[in-house]
Amino acid sequence: MNFPSKLIENAVEELAKLPGIGRKTALRLALHLLKTETEQTVGMADALLKMRTLITYCKTCHNISDSETCSICGNPGRDHSLVCVVSDIRDVMAIENTSQFKGVYHVLGGVISPIEGIGPSDLTINSLLERIPNSEIKEVILALSPTIEGDTTSFYITRKLKDFNLKITSIARGVPVGGELEYIDEITLGRSIVERSNYGRS
Amino acid sequence: MNFPSKLIENAVEELAKLPGIGRKTALRLALHLLKTETEQTVGMADALLKMRTLITYCKTCHNISDSETCSICGNPGRDHSLVCVVSDIRDVMAIENTSQFKGVYHVLGGVISPIEGIGPSDLTINSLLERIPNSEIKEVILALSPTIEGDTTSFYITRKLKDFNLKITSIARGVPVGGELEYIDEITLGRSIVERSNYGRS
Repeated sequence: MNFPSKLIENAVEELAKLPGIGRKTALRLALHLLKTETEQTVGMADALLKMRTLITYCKTCHNISDSETCSICGNPGRDHSLVCVVSDIRDVMAIENTSQFKGVYHVLGGVISPIEGIGPSDLTINSLLERIPNSEIKEVILALSPTIEGDTTSFYITRKLKDFNLKITSIARGVPVGGELEYIDEITLGRSIVERSNYGRS
Repeated sequence: MNFPSKLIENAVEELAKLPGIGRKTALRLALHLLKTETEQTVGMADALLKMRTLITYCKTCHNISDSETCSICGNPGRDHSLVCVVSDIRDVMAIENTSQFKGVYHVLGGVISPIEGIGPSDLTINSLLERIPNSEIKEVILALSPTIEGDTTSFYITRKLKDFNLKITSIARGVPVGGELEYIDEITLGRSIVERSNYGRS
């Protein structure tokens, strides 16, 4: 691309570093910012800089936080005996949005993936193991995606946790609510039959 | 969405103001920035701020420029008797990338669109009319998209230019190079027959 201005070229190149944003989209975004008030660009730049430089991670669960202990870990109303292990901060947000979970979390920061070069030491698994002794944790819920990487990670954590006197559970796999049976894949459908629950159980 | 941090919430809300970026994508971008070096966020914020505050528009052709006169208008090697009228800065870049045009440009800043409330006075049509007297312009090429809005704008400009002693042309409409005839729409195919050229003409 031949840019008419070095300033716009730099902006496009920086925007194109974001995931899923190519140079054409980056140019569209840059031209959009040029058409809007200067305040919008200033506001965005400021919010991004503040987020990147001021944000911290909870030292207990590794969730994003504005302080040393996140609002979930610091909340005495939550059940601190129940820890839900998730891959990502987005999973915490998704589970929080359901309002169905009153325990606390442990954010791994990813899943074990040899292809992407992510091993157990790149995740916060050791921090989870250190967190369990001298704590009130009684149950660990593994809430990882039902993929090969997620299952591998669940298996690895389960083995690491076997010496602790803990209940280890996994989120239910089955037919999604509102899902049409004929479009569900065979593995999920098969598993939903094997792991059937009593009718009427909430 | 329940955000674990006000800082990330602000960043997501600012990113979600960009066109084509919803809150889920904005969150993905924000979390990506958190995983990368601080320098990347600083570099992006800086490039966007510099672009928004320092960029100017060429006073002759209204193209984006780092100075009062853009690099195309200021280039004595270009043919200043030939003006290509385009809707957008992206069109200038697209035509420049072909290396087929050695004239200069006039960027309208859009096309006439009653539905979007864009009239002739919102575009740089008057600036084009003021540019023609006392200039060496001999030909105006209308290079607008073959849409209803583009055709309306071309028609409007043609009428405004009829008192000047100018050649007014339009970019060729026809079958795109590499296009399969059977998939071309009937209007384009019909027009490509009516406006056929001698075989072997480059």
